[in-house]
Amino acid sequence: MREIHIGILGLGTVGTGIAKLIYDNGDLIASRLGAKLTLKKAADIDLARDRGIRFPDGVLTKDALEVVNDPEIDIVLEMIGGQTIAKDLILKAIAGGKHIVTANKALLASSGNMLFKTAAEKGVSIAFEPSVGGCIPIIKTIRESLVGNRIISITGILNGTCNYILSKITHEGISFQNSLAQAQAEGFAEADPTLDIEGFDTAHKLAILTSIAFGTEINLEDIYVEGISKITDMDIEFATASGYRIKLLAITKYTGGAIDVRVHPTMIPFENPLSNVNGSLNAVTIKGDAVGDMMLYGHGAGMMPTASAAISDTVDIARDLIAGTPGRVPMQSFQAREIRKIPTRPIDEISSHYYVRFSALDRPGVLSKISGILGDHAISIKSVHQTERKTDGAVPIFMLTHQAREAEIQTALAKIASLASITAAPALIRIEGAR
Amino acid sequence: MREIHIGILGLGTVGTGIAKLIYDNGDLIASRLGAKLTLKKAADIDLARDRGIRFPDGVLTKDALEVVNDPEIDIVLEMIGGQTIAKDLILKAIAGGKHIVTANKALLASSGNMLFKTAAEKGVSIAFEPSVGGCIPIIKTIRESLVGNRIISITGILNGTCNYILSKITHEGISFQNSLAQAQAEGFAEADPTLDIEGFDTAHKLAILTSIAFGTEINLEDIYVEGISKITDMDIEFATASGYRIKLLAITKYTGGAIDVRVHPTMIPFENPLSNVNGSLNAVTIKGDAVGDMMLYGHGAGMMPTASAAISDTVDIARDLIAGTPGRVPMQSFQAREIRKIPTRPIDEISSHYYVRFSALDRPGVLSKISGILGDHAISIKSVHQTERKTDGAVPIFMLTHQAREAEIQTALAKIASLASITAAPALIRIEGAR
Repeated sequence: MREIHIGILGLGTVGTGIAKLIYDNGDLIASRLGAKLTLKKAADIDLARDRGIRFPDGVLTKDALEVVNDPEIDIVLEMIGGQTIAKDLILKAIAGGKHIVTANKALLASSGNMLFKTAAEKGVSIAFEPSVGGCIPIIKTIRESLVGNRIISITGILNGTCNYILSKITHEGISFQNSLAQAQAEGFAEADPTLDIEGFDTAHKLAILTSIAFGTEINLEDIYVEGISKITDMDIEFATASGYRIKLLAITKYTGGAIDVRVHPTMIPFENPLSNVNGSLNAVTIKGDAVGDMMLYGHGAGMMPTASAAISDTVDIARDLIAGTPGRVPMQSFQAREIRKIPTRPIDEISSHYYVRFSALDRPGVLSKISGILGDHAISIKSVHQTERKTDGAVPIFMLTHQAREAEIQTALAKIASLASITAAPALIRIEGAR
Repeated sequence: MREIHIGILGLGTVGTGIAKLIYDNGDLIASRLGAKLTLKKAADIDLARDRGIRFPDGVLTKDALEVVNDPEIDIVLEMIGGQTIAKDLILKAIAGGKHIVTANKALLASSGNMLFKTAAEKGVSIAFEPSVGGCIPIIKTIRESLVGNRIISITGILNGTCNYILSKITHEGISFQNSLAQAQAEGFAEADPTLDIEGFDTAHKLAILTSIAFGTEINLEDIYVEGISKITDMDIEFATASGYRIKLLAITKYTGGAIDVRVHPTMIPFENPLSNVNGSLNAVTIKGDAVGDMMLYGHGAGMMPTASAAISDTVDIARDLIAGTPGRVPMQSFQAREIRKIPTRPIDEISSHYYVRFSALDRPGVLSKISGILGDHAISIKSVHQTERKTDGAVPIFMLTHQAREAEIQTALAKIASLASITAAPALIRIEGAR
């Protein structure tokens, strides 16, 4: 039976999971592939740690170059992450004619255009199913299953940490800070959670999906990004009472020749299947002109789910190697010559329904001033809710608006914030699929 | 640009959808495939009907053999359905060296083993994504994305008609008969709904999924099948009050060297994401040893969703043709030599939690007799609920059991049915994931 030699860079969580799958399910994979995946080399700086795997002699190395320079290795699985060493090693591996599988969304979001171009020139593939949504086959579905569809939009919950925290606040009624602390204690959030909480990890993934959905260059800088750190239990309580959940959504839509691409906390109605996706799970809905709405749902991170996606990519490349057909499916879904730079619509130019919350001194005339300013900006109020007095004489005023332009609502909120009777910066959450 | 010539057999709903996609999205498909899909011939007995498509001269024909025998056609898309003409035409096309895309689950479930063998001998592929779950990429996901996983189980809502009817009863409180009549009026159910309602269509799809999930021959006869026609609004009301939905589920599980494969109405708790899949939508959950639980959800039927799946298969085959690599991914997921006949576990040998409902005369001692018989068969009762008097002195008694063996509960129910105080055949619904 033919052997395909692979090398792993980085034996962290996912790298270790890949090695486990190759050793535990190797025979099963061979019965499907018709060839054997052999782990030739695996590099990590820490070889002392017990990973629960008995690696054969000679597989482990501290020197990543031993993987990258091994002439027998056909496919390099880069599971280091980050944008420095990983990038250099991928470029060296490509230069050596090796195919790449990577889970590195940060690298692809920042340097993907260059990496894909370099790989294409060398006639090798970069596969990246594990970079978005863990085991969810979102890349393959967009690229292969929806090949006959004009993609209209993609909306996803792509960060398990944020979804875990928002679910905790929603279902257990605890504060953002306590929820984050629990997520850290349970291993769902990093010690420095900025990349997750502020939406950057989600934006990296969205940049990749947007590129393969619409055939545009990867353009991370143009994505509007807003994290979940300002979401309060008050917002979530009001949302629940109004039939909404608040989720950190990655949204990309192609309309009128431009792409509306953004990451922000979003209110979605209970009827939206994404509203039922709780805990650290991920889900992606895709709207295509032929399929209508579809959804894929599963574990978006973790050792074995992400390893499963890496093995899927590895087997795809192995099939191409066996058949002698590198690049059978174009890396970025479209033929390289078809990939353009499609303009991005600035956030100011979108229209949306909005939830806004004000902290106001409990004085006569405040509501009139607020609604007057909103009216001046052509923002029509759908509902208002003012609750009983809170601390320091300030009360929260909750509003849902009809469809309005982002530029108008931002200007109006800035004016309202400057009123003497307003005690804190107004909160704003965009709504998708308003009831 | 290279052209790949395709032919369509049958311009019914799906065949027409495929032609629409090729004409409407042809340029888009070419920008991804790097070649042009050209519809060379499309055959149907009715050419008078307006399909809203301007076919170029010479494409339409009443003679299916013109498609099958056209030496220029590379891929034949069989969208006729049924097991007579469709089978002959597929065999003729295979004999002529053409690749096949089919939506014909009934044919694959009954003759798939022979058809796959014949295709393999001739070096052509039979692709069948549109045969299960409409646009949901369930075949590709099992075969390619989960290639590194040992599949543990698949559970699906695979028949839109049944799901539409059960959703109507659940959410609108109308009877089975009225719900079916509405489904027929709205085009969601056939005039003769037997194939859908009695679970056979679901069983056909499950036979296909079971084969590719576990590497077993297709074995329709061994699937236990029970439809939804005996479900009453009483059962659904009780289920709802107990935190369950009733869905017609396709279930296949590999345990202890045998496959537990069955189609029947099933009670699932609200927490199960399948419980939220309503109307004519389909969804499939897959449990793999690496990915854990995942779910795919979307339109399981209809013109354009099913056409999308057919185009996905067509493009896959086109890529193989361009690269000269037929059979790059084995049709049945496993290499042909690895496909065995894995034994099926008879329904009598399964264990499950059960819901049972009795119609009993309202006399002293009835409950004692029923529970005595259940006890004799080692069936432990989890809860009992008896409502107020109904018609003819008979009252319904609802029970949920702890885990019990199917053979025992069937024997016990037969004994209970023969009691003088029992006025109708007992109802039984299996529970998955009991609360």
